[in-house]
Amino acid sequence: MDEFMQAAIEEAEQGLAEGGVPIGSVLVFEGKIIGRGHNQRQQQNSAILHGEMSALENASRQTARVYRNSVIYTTLSPCPMCSGAIRLYQIPRVVIGENQTFLGDEALLKSSGIELEVLQNERCIQLMQDFIAANPEIWNEDIGE
Amino acid sequence: MDEFMQAAIEEAEQGLAEGGVPIGSVLVFEGKIIGRGHNQRQQQNSAILHGEMSALENASRQTARVYRNSVIYTTLSPCPMCSGAIRLYQIPRVVIGENQTFLGDEALLKSSGIELEVLQNERCIQLMQDFIAANPEIWNEDIGE
Repeated sequence: MDEFMQAAIEEAEQGLAEGGVPIGSVLVFEGKIIGRGHNQRQQQNSAILHGEMSALENASRQTARVYRNSVIYTTLSPCPMCSGAIRLYQIPRVVIGENQTFLGDEALLKSSGIELEVLQNERCIQLMQDFIAANPEIWNEDIGE
Repeated sequence: MDEFMQAAIEEAEQGLAEGGVPIGSVLVFEGKIIGRGHNQRQQQNSAILHGEMSALENASRQTARVYRNSVIYTTLSPCPMCSGAIRLYQIPRVVIGENQTFLGDEALLKSSGIELEVLQNERCIQLMQDFIAANPEIWNEDIGE
């Protein structure tokens, strides 16, 4: 598997080990990971630190040139908030682990000219299926339901 | 002036006093502020803590029922990221200090059924005009330009 999706999955697994929502993400610029993170709803009682938001935050401040030449990898289809962050910074390409357990704002991303690749990765799907089955209330909270 | 927009302006002014981007926000549920904050780009080197995101984060975890019965006040028109967060949590009403210095994702919010009120408040406009004139590079970074 692509090393960057592998890194995103490792983030998701770390989140799971911490008792959190198992979604991970990495931001890649010029072939290097410049930010990585995972959902922090449980760990930090955070309403905004989804996987992608954590990766962006951990990348610290970057110039527009960096974002516009980066790829963001995420284990799950990006929700409206994370898709909004991707649109704000005009990250041109998103690699998505799966969109079977949750379909985010992919249509909006595409209509904004952002390139999407969906892998339907089995490990990403299993992580979410297991978590949602065991923790439906936390999952609903995470997606505003 | 509405006490909640006044609180958002106080947040913006606190951000300015800290050397930061002067944008503030409050989240109001059942007539009470449950989260308030201001942009933290300079203060925390944050790429994601815009005013609205700070208010949401400082409100901690809330149920869907709370968000769907809340109003968010922000001194400036919400960017794509903050608009995405508002859409994720289905906050039904946004009161905006001004949209003259920056027009965010208002069309998308409206098309999502979210009610907007734009005040064109003079203090909000002045705060942004002065900051952008003095710090164009920080401002451009904040909006991904």
